[in-house]
Amino acid sequence: MAVYFEGSDHLRLRKESALPQRIDDDIRVTYLVRAAAADIAERAEALMLEQTVELPRAVAARDPWVAAHLLGRVDQIAAATAGTYRVTIAQPLATAAGDPAQLLNVLFGNSSLQPDVVLADVDLPGAAFDWLPGPRAGIAGLRELAGVTGRPLLATALKPMGLRPAQLASLCATFARAGSDLVKDDHGLADHPFCPFEARVEACLGAVEEAARDTGRRALYVPNLIGTPERMRRQMEFAREAGVRAVVVSPMLTGLPFLHELASLADGLPIVAHPAFGGVLRALEPALFGKLFRWFGSDAVIFPHAGGRFSYGPDTCAALAAELRSAHPRVRPAFPVPAGGIRVERVAALLEFYGPDCILLIGGSLYDAGDALFDRTRDLVEQVTRTAAAEPVQ
Amino acid sequence: MAVYFEGSDHLRLRKESALPQRIDDDIRVTYLVRAAAADIAERAEALMLEQTVELPRAVAARDPWVAAHLLGRVDQIAAATAGTYRVTIAQPLATAAGDPAQLLNVLFGNSSLQPDVVLADVDLPGAAFDWLPGPRAGIAGLRELAGVTGRPLLATALKPMGLRPAQLASLCATFARAGSDLVKDDHGLADHPFCPFEARVEACLGAVEEAARDTGRRALYVPNLIGTPERMRRQMEFAREAGVRAVVVSPMLTGLPFLHELASLADGLPIVAHPAFGGVLRALEPALFGKLFRWFGSDAVIFPHAGGRFSYGPDTCAALAAELRSAHPRVRPAFPVPAGGIRVERVAALLEFYGPDCILLIGGSLYDAGDALFDRTRDLVEQVTRTAAAEPVQ
Repeated sequence: MAVYFEGSDHLRLRKESALPQRIDDDIRVTYLVRAAAADIAERAEALMLEQTVELPRAVAARDPWVAAHLLGRVDQIAAATAGTYRVTIAQPLATAAGDPAQLLNVLFGNSSLQPDVVLADVDLPGAAFDWLPGPRAGIAGLRELAGVTGRPLLATALKPMGLRPAQLASLCATFARAGSDLVKDDHGLADHPFCPFEARVEACLGAVEEAARDTGRRALYVPNLIGTPERMRRQMEFAREAGVRAVVVSPMLTGLPFLHELASLADGLPIVAHPAFGGVLRALEPALFGKLFRWFGSDAVIFPHAGGRFSYGPDTCAALAAELRSAHPRVRPAFPVPAGGIRVERVAALLEFYGPDCILLIGGSLYDAGDALFDRTRDLVEQVTRTAAAEPVQ
Repeated sequence: MAVYFEGSDHLRLRKESALPQRIDDDIRVTYLVRAAAADIAERAEALMLEQTVELPRAVAARDPWVAAHLLGRVDQIAAATAGTYRVTIAQPLATAAGDPAQLLNVLFGNSSLQPDVVLADVDLPGAAFDWLPGPRAGIAGLRELAGVTGRPLLATALKPMGLRPAQLASLCATFARAGSDLVKDDHGLADHPFCPFEARVEACLGAVEEAARDTGRRALYVPNLIGTPERMRRQMEFAREAGVRAVVVSPMLTGLPFLHELASLADGLPIVAHPAFGGVLRALEPALFGKLFRWFGSDAVIFPHAGGRFSYGPDTCAALAAELRSAHPRVRPAFPVPAGGIRVERVAALLEFYGPDCILLIGGSLYDAGDALFDRTRDLVEQVTRTAAAEPVQ
């Protein structure tokens, strides 16, 4: 239960920053800030200035145009847990320069270095989505590519790093024949000399194609792009021309602005985003993976489901999934992809938890089956496909 | 004082992983891991596997080639603070695929999402520097560009965001005439419609040039590149052709692999790296900003000096500076650039703290001077230039 702060400092600050009303045009960013009650109003004002002008208000406001158009405003301070406040700051959208990298800078550039601050939430005005179009395909588009309606999708993962293309293609064939909807590269499969990207893509596409001739149903093989932007653009181009229809990208490793660039390519492919390098201690997961990842162009977002070998709780997972799937006037909903050490035995509970609009990613635990990999995958496919068709959750 | 662990679990693990000796070819990565004494050996093994094969050892090792060439090894477990261990893991360099993004993935991809793990240190074998050449100019090259030997360099910053090109150029002229060695854009100066990158660069270069005709000494104007990789490459190209000789980049915002790409361009420019967005990672600052930033191509690295409006302590700052300047057979030393709310009055202490091989970045506190900006800068320049010439610190 949020208790709103009506202390005199806060009111004074709001009064002093009597700017032209811009509420509908503002970025609204919420931080959790650790501070004493007596200091929070001043701390919030400093945080607001830190993210844009990096000067005290009086100095920045020497230029009246800056004062009128660039200075933000502390919008709300609410007590959160003991010693922590939820501080909502309104920053003019103009500060973001119509650019995804600069938007990150305004949201959490310098403040990410301040240990008393956690990025908790972000809301953008409609105009931001003129230059942040979001997912290319989204849930509906990926469903169309996979030919699946009304039930969750199943994704399996090719691993371990170290296998050569023919071995991965053989695994890919097993998963495809068993009925996996997506077969993705592990995000650690790079352009290794022992398993070059091109050879892997060709071998795995061939395996999927051959399986499709026998089963009548084509799995989506989703290769992993990793490298510098130049290398990843080459990988994307090769994959598209070879017939790939979606790719894996780890945007925190390779840069969130580059995710946006890939997602905005006229001839690009839908993107399944992996959270590697996302080190989330100081940003809440629903804001980073649920909002920013989607807005920057992820069609599906992998995240560790509660209870695996990572640490997210069920509330975090539910909030993250809700953000990804939430209705938005400009941005397509994206698939949540719970993963991270999910045991086959937990699948029923997961399907209930997430409902039909999710991609269930089962990686390592299938491999425990050894020679029974096909059968184990087949069982899993049956479990997922018999899930009652339900209205897609929006 | 590190106490080495001689527990049976640890010894057993080392014995089991009796691989061909690869010590000189291994990535050695150290994490701080929170765990109970009874669990740390198992936790360390799991961490090692998480970063590459993402499978239990027995499953990954079904392929003998993977076991021989891809599986890493827990090298050392040492008690650190209460409940925390320093875990050093050796991973074969081959896992990194000769690629900077994949290297980050092996170092801290999935583990960055595990709250019991902090990235503490990294060492790379010599062969890694075949594809990680590091800074283009380094300390010596930037000194040559600035025409300064034997003393610290002074950098000032153009701000606030919101000023138009002519206003920034006027500030730039003031700083240049007062004798600032570098005049850099604030890292929040993007390609805003009210201050387009090209117009800003031309105006500021013009200001520096005009000042040089009068004073006989040319300050380095260092513009800020920000955006998607495609936009930043265009900015870099425009800047170079206009006569710019170094640029500011925020690699955590725009992607560390892209820093490497920029630093490796045949016709690129030296890079002053800004730490914005760097706090999203749970990594110790000397490892992230002192090693990775340098290895990925930063010629100088900005970081918040102790006691400003950020939180690093003096030990962290000293360690970070030492990493950046340390002798390396393959990689040029880079300049530490202490910054972050340094008051003019603290400059003498800072110069003593860092010695001559640093760039002192004084941003906001000069602006307090208002109309006396020239005089205040002039005083600062005199303070820096009268610092006794000393042997460069290596």
